[in-house]
Amino acid sequence: MARVEPKLLKGFRDYLPDIERARLAMLDAVRRVFESFSFGPLQTPAIEYAEILLGKYGDEGDKLLYRFLDNGERDVALRYDLTVPLARVVGLYHGQLQWPFRRYQMAPVWRAEKPARGRFREFMQCDADIVGEPSVRADAEIMAVGLSVLRALGVPSYVMRVNDRRILDGVLDVLGVPAGQPRVVALRAVDKLPKVGAEPVLAELEREAGLSRPVAEQLLVSLDRNLKRREDLAPLRTLLAGSEVGLRGLDGLEGLLDLIAEAGLAERVEVDLTIARGLDYYTATIYETFLTEHEGYGSVMSGGRYDGLMDTFSGKPTPAVGISLGVDRLLAALTETGLLTVGGPPADVFLCLLEASAHGRAMRAAATLREAGLQVEAGLAESKLGKQLQHATKRGYRHVLIASAVDLDAGLLQLKDLETGLQEVVALADVAHWGARVSRRRQGTGT
Amino acid sequence: MARVEPKLLKGFRDYLPDIERARLAMLDAVRRVFESFSFGPLQTPAIEYAEILLGKYGDEGDKLLYRFLDNGERDVALRYDLTVPLARVVGLYHGQLQWPFRRYQMAPVWRAEKPARGRFREFMQCDADIVGEPSVRADAEIMAVGLSVLRALGVPSYVMRVNDRRILDGVLDVLGVPAGQPRVVALRAVDKLPKVGAEPVLAELEREAGLSRPVAEQLLVSLDRNLKRREDLAPLRTLLAGSEVGLRGLDGLEGLLDLIAEAGLAERVEVDLTIARGLDYYTATIYETFLTEHEGYGSVMSGGRYDGLMDTFSGKPTPAVGISLGVDRLLAALTETGLLTVGGPPADVFLCLLEASAHGRAMRAAATLREAGLQVEAGLAESKLGKQLQHATKRGYRHVLIASAVDLDAGLLQLKDLETGLQEVVALADVAHWGARVSRRRQGTGT
Repeated sequence: MARVEPKLLKGFRDYLPDIERARLAMLDAVRRVFESFSFGPLQTPAIEYAEILLGKYGDEGDKLLYRFLDNGERDVALRYDLTVPLARVVGLYHGQLQWPFRRYQMAPVWRAEKPARGRFREFMQCDADIVGEPSVRADAEIMAVGLSVLRALGVPSYVMRVNDRRILDGVLDVLGVPAGQPRVVALRAVDKLPKVGAEPVLAELEREAGLSRPVAEQLLVSLDRNLKRREDLAPLRTLLAGSEVGLRGLDGLEGLLDLIAEAGLAERVEVDLTIARGLDYYTATIYETFLTEHEGYGSVMSGGRYDGLMDTFSGKPTPAVGISLGVDRLLAALTETGLLTVGGPPADVFLCLLEASAHGRAMRAAATLREAGLQVEAGLAESKLGKQLQHATKRGYRHVLIASAVDLDAGLLQLKDLETGLQEVVALADVAHWGARVSRRRQGTGT
Repeated sequence: MARVEPKLLKGFRDYLPDIERARLAMLDAVRRVFESFSFGPLQTPAIEYAEILLGKYGDEGDKLLYRFLDNGERDVALRYDLTVPLARVVGLYHGQLQWPFRRYQMAPVWRAEKPARGRFREFMQCDADIVGEPSVRADAEIMAVGLSVLRALGVPSYVMRVNDRRILDGVLDVLGVPAGQPRVVALRAVDKLPKVGAEPVLAELEREAGLSRPVAEQLLVSLDRNLKRREDLAPLRTLLAGSEVGLRGLDGLEGLLDLIAEAGLAERVEVDLTIARGLDYYTATIYETFLTEHEGYGSVMSGGRYDGLMDTFSGKPTPAVGISLGVDRLLAALTETGLLTVGGPPADVFLCLLEASAHGRAMRAAATLREAGLQVEAGLAESKLGKQLQHATKRGYRHVLIASAVDLDAGLLQLKDLETGLQEVVALADVAHWGARVSRRRQGTGT
């Protein structure tokens, strides 16, 4: 075959074993938390009919879909998130599901974004959602799941910032911002406040949303980022007196914060009225989560309540609330800031062989050790012992087993500690016992 | 939003929680085996440049690619298998990898096949490959990995059928079948022998490969399926006397079978000279694995040596051998034949609440139990206890915890056994201890 240049598409990544091992350990931990909250796993196809996905994410989202005609000329697209596929599943299997339907899904999604630092065209989402429960208890449960995930991952310092879309709508009502596109544009502008500061946002509100300067200014005052605690919300009640939807949002947010406090989670949660979330489908509670010492990475976990989305597929009112962890962004943050180190040998022990003729018997011994729970790399090259030991050292092993034909036939091995240089004859059965202990320790730490 | 029909694309599947839980347990077990053999995880993008994938799978494979122009007009395609992406990775990062490079990858692949029973357009592959080791020791190691996977999955009865492409080439040389397309067509016809029987294969060999009837017949006699053991291969040596490549293949296969026997794996491995494997890139050892009591499911695990493929990307000789488990096909076989049962409650225990006002405190108690390792489903609905117990029963729980405000404040809960009806007051701390035991047991069984 002719030589082909091994190119990787821009905005896509390969995860080589060292980093992928750390990533899988993270995903395992996330999954254990989801399951500890009784969420069940769901898997859906990467490809959906385009009409399933279109119109759910806003105009910008539609543009970012990987959309194409398949070999049967069907108009299809790669999934853009895991929420709309969930809504399709709920519509399709409504009668078969257990209610409320708590599901998690951990899978890649695709967005044809302009690649930038920390922004990729393929990335993993880890989502947990509760479908079918309208009360704020479900919102609190989802937030508790999210906070437990970050805790389980050993993230040292983080805060979940919460808001309610209805409060935003109420404020916009009161300020006379017309419904529809101006409001979408205004919310999107407000969402940028922490990133770009007040002046560009004010300019955008005037230019793009058609607000007068005083109204734009009043909007930013109403959505002051310094209103962080439940008590800070009291003045909003006066402002929102004329907006039914705004008051419902305020009641909802206060009730949610009460539950969060009773559940002992208040120190990780604060109000942030500037949070708007870009996606069109959110209807009430919304939240984003930041690493407080590394806010530059942006939100690592976000979500909210989206009571209308499911209805478009199921044809009946189906309330839902969920959260999504951006595991690749979090992994980047944890490794780049030194909170997570990667590397180490690929197994517990390396098996060297003195004579190539005993390779089959060495395979049999390795099988016995693996059966006991030990991870064993069996050397494959026919080389001198010194070279094999060098190889094991380079790969990061501390322990090597040395097998000879005579020893193997007697059920024996040499165990060498590369750190101390000590070497001793051990029975295969004793190494197996050691393997069982190593294996239990590995399961205990979950890696 | 307007109502949208929740359609699923033909040839694609949703995995709802019960079956997905069983599937994840399978994938976990596969991964543990791969890691016990020191294979490191790799992840690559779903989308590759089309030119990376084209021409590696044969004409039929090229036609089955999901190929499209992305938003930047790049000619791209969804990966068709995990082997060609591995070859690209090896070409791209040749200097950074540890050699031999043992990697596993577990990920979906896409093929625009005509959907049929057990044949899907998206399916999961679990691959383990050794790159950089030319000796038959690597082939034996990969076969050992595959057999260990089936053993770990509790598959009761299976056989791995092995062949060598070079033997096929040698036989075709000796019989005067021209190289190139006639030979590809002939091998593909021979591959169908176990499925369709001799007569249609003979007809196809005459019609499609242009063989005379006597040559076609001699081909099928030479590749007799009854030649199953190493000893049965001796007569081939005479037939292949005039073919250097054929003799190399025979030497290789005999050496491999010797290693397999010494490693204690002979009872699961047999020769099958009719196995040819459809993909173009195999060069030597090839194998397929069947459930001996359910051969109708076809091969559930296959692979072989492909010493030329890597070279097209790396530009230097890079031998490789691998195996691929078709986990969805195996899952279908195990569930449909009753070897694997699915279902059960989504957590260890269901938490009922007597008063909705205590919900936040109940969340806190649930968090304590989860911290100890217990999976807890906290009820979210505000309903009478009887209804909550009904719900727990329906979901398959044996144990429920009943929380009241007064009990919670005293660090107590009621534990009810739905099977025996027994109910007792227990300290939260005691339930946590029970949780730790349940958690250890879960880790021990790996689910």
